[in-house]
Parts: sequence; structure tokens; C-alpha cells
Amino acid sequence: MSADPFDELLEALRCLPGVGARSAQRMALQLLERDRDGGRRLADALATAMRDIRRCRRCRNFTSDEECRICRSDRRSSEVLCVVESPGDVLAIEAATAFDGRYFVLLGRLSPLDGIGPEDLGLDLLGERLDEEGVAEIIIATNTTVEGEATAQYLREMAESRSIRTSRLAQGVPLGGELEHTDRSTLAHAFSSRLPMR
Amino acid sequence: MSADPFDELLEALRCLPGVGARSAQRMALQLLERDRDGGRRLADALATAMRDIRRCRRCRNFTSDEECRICRSDRRSSEVLCVVESPGDVLAIEAATAFDGRYFVLLGRLSPLDGIGPEDLGLDLLGERLDEEGVAEIIIATNTTVEGEATAQYLREMAESRSIRTSRLAQGVPLGGELEHTDRSTLAHAFSSRLPMR
Repeated sequence: MSADPFDELLEALRCLPGVGARSAQRMALQLLERDRDGGRRLADALATAMRDIRRCRRCRNFTSDEECRICRSDRRSSEVLCVVESPGDVLAIEAATAFDGRYFVLLGRLSPLDGIGPEDLGLDLLGERLDEEGVAEIIIATNTTVEGEATAQYLREMAESRSIRTSRLAQGVPLGGELEHTDRSTLAHAFSSRLPMR
Repeated sequence: MSADPFDELLEALRCLPGVGARSAQRMALQLLERDRDGGRRLADALATAMRDIRRCRRCRNFTSDEECRICRSDRRSSEVLCVVESPGDVLAIEAATAFDGRYFVLLGRLSPLDGIGPEDLGLDLLGERLDEEGVAEIIIATNTTVEGEATAQYLREMAESRSIRTSRLAQGVPLGGELEHTDRSTLAHAFSSRLPMR
């Protein structure tokens, strides 16, 4: 006898981040009791996405085509290139800013201890783009973790050897945040990097 | 051009209870970046479950066979029948108790205002079972909501007309709960239903 489809569904749902035994049960019962169409649609969407979504050959972001929408668009400038760690960062920047340049997605960060070197992040591909596309500025938007900073340094050297300008996202206290709840290192950095008030 | 598979996946994930735009994005990126096998497995499990899982013809619980595991088992007693509102209640009782009788799942509760009458809850099927199976006691485990109580009353009358004993789950303050955080109506009920201490 094969595994019970209900148990199998509970088990499979737990591959989703943040879903434990109880949420899996709630999800399975909700779909079975009230939304079988939604469940079928999700099954199809998952199968299609897992099969068709791959990396854009220019920027390594997720896409179901050869090149992603942003790389294909002729309304985006090739002069400014924003380098991020993950596709989620592209979505966040697109949602928050009016940035009209292009992206490069590392899909990771330099981490020699984990054996992740420049070639794993597609930095050879990035180098080719810098040589060919007339990029004037690289916005380095890696995370502000130790590995993210190391990756940022590496990118800055790549850019400098090609005389390309680099910038890094401003760091400091978050907007709307309360000083008393800001973590110590952020506060120390913001304090020492204070700017003249205009 | 058809819809983008990534957007389609984000939209489809939101049919899951408790999943909004941000969690959907987190789930989609996690599966695409780190767990495509898990994503494929979930797609298969969902498709199978939505297609194969139906109602047990005896107790109306979910099953992928004609009859569910509990109804098929010959180690469960036919003398005590526990009536619940939903398949989730069966799972909860199975996990918490050593109950070895059988179940009947209403898949809803009486609610005349919503047009839900006895026939929608399979009470004709329940009546047949009561007439045929020699049930000695019905444990009425509907929720303690207004509709759940009305349903319980209806079930009690069905049982009494057949001289079958009924019981209802004990109501009172939860174990391990603090009185000060118990809701007012539960506390009032528990107070007036106090029992001699042994």
C-alpha cells in the first residue's frame, strides 16, 4: 500500500518556510474542505514554476525566458548596474525605489569557508558585462553582513580596475525607527557617520 | 503572452490560509533557490490529494479509499460513536485521547440562516448507522458555539428517539490555564458547574 495522500500532503507542505505540523494540517484541511480549485491551481503553478523558471543569462535573476523582463526592457538604463545577493533583493528594490538601471544577481555571497568563490557568483559573467556594456556606476547592494561586506570589497576592486564608479547603500538608523530600539552597532555607526544638517 | 510563472506562483500560494504577499514571496524564493525537489514533491502531493481525497462513505471523513482507515479497522468499537464538525476535530481527538470508537464527521453545523439543514450534514446517513450498527453511546463533540450547541441538541433528539445514550465533552477552565486569563463566559460556566472535590 502506498503512502496515504493526506499524510503525504502534510509532509510535503512542510518544505515551505515557516510551516510546521499544525500549519500544514490547517492548510491541507482548508484546501480540501473549501478550496480544491485553489489547491489544483497551486499544484499547477508550482509544477510550472519548478520546471520553467531558470536564471536570466545576463543578470542571473529568475525568469522563465532566456532573459528576464528587466534585461529585455529598452526603457532601463545600461549605465547603472545594481548588484544584489538574491532575487528577493531585486523585488524589494523595485518595490521601494524608482531605480531605472539594471541588475546583477549574485545568488549568494563570497564565503571562502563554505567554498563559495567568485566563479560561483557569476563574477566572470559580471566582468564581461562591465567590459562590454559601458556601465558608468555600480550600486553595490549586498547585505551588511560580514560576507556581504567582503563581497562588496571584491566588487569595488573589480569596478576600480575598470575605472567604474561604485556606490554602496547608505547605512544608519532606519526611518521611523526609535533610537532606543536600534541595535548597538547600527547606532554606533550612525553616530560616527553623522552628516551636517541642512 | 501568458502570465509570468513567478507571479502566477505568488498568486496561487496566497490561497493557503495565513499566507499574504510577503510570505508567498518568501516561500516562492525559498523553493526556487534552495528546494526545487521539495517544490515538485509538493506539486505532486497537492495534485494527488485534490484529485483522490474524498469523503468516507460511512463517516464522511477524508480518505482516498471507499472507507477511511478508522471505519475499516476491526480494532475500533462500533458501540461508541463520536460526532464532530470537521476532519480536523478527528485528528485532534485521535492525537489527544485513547478513544477507540468510531466517528461521524458532519462537515459543518446546523445553520438555518445559511441554509444548512440536517441533510447537508449527512444526518440521514447518521440515522441509518444508528439504526443498523447497534451504537450504545454518542459522544457529541461539536464546537461550543451557538450553531455547534444547536447541532448538539438536534443530535441528542436523534439519539433519544432511538434510546441511545448521549454525552457531551466537559466544559470548564482549560488545564494549565490561569483563571485571570480565562474568558468571562467560560469562567462563569465553570463556576456554576463546580463539582465536589474528591
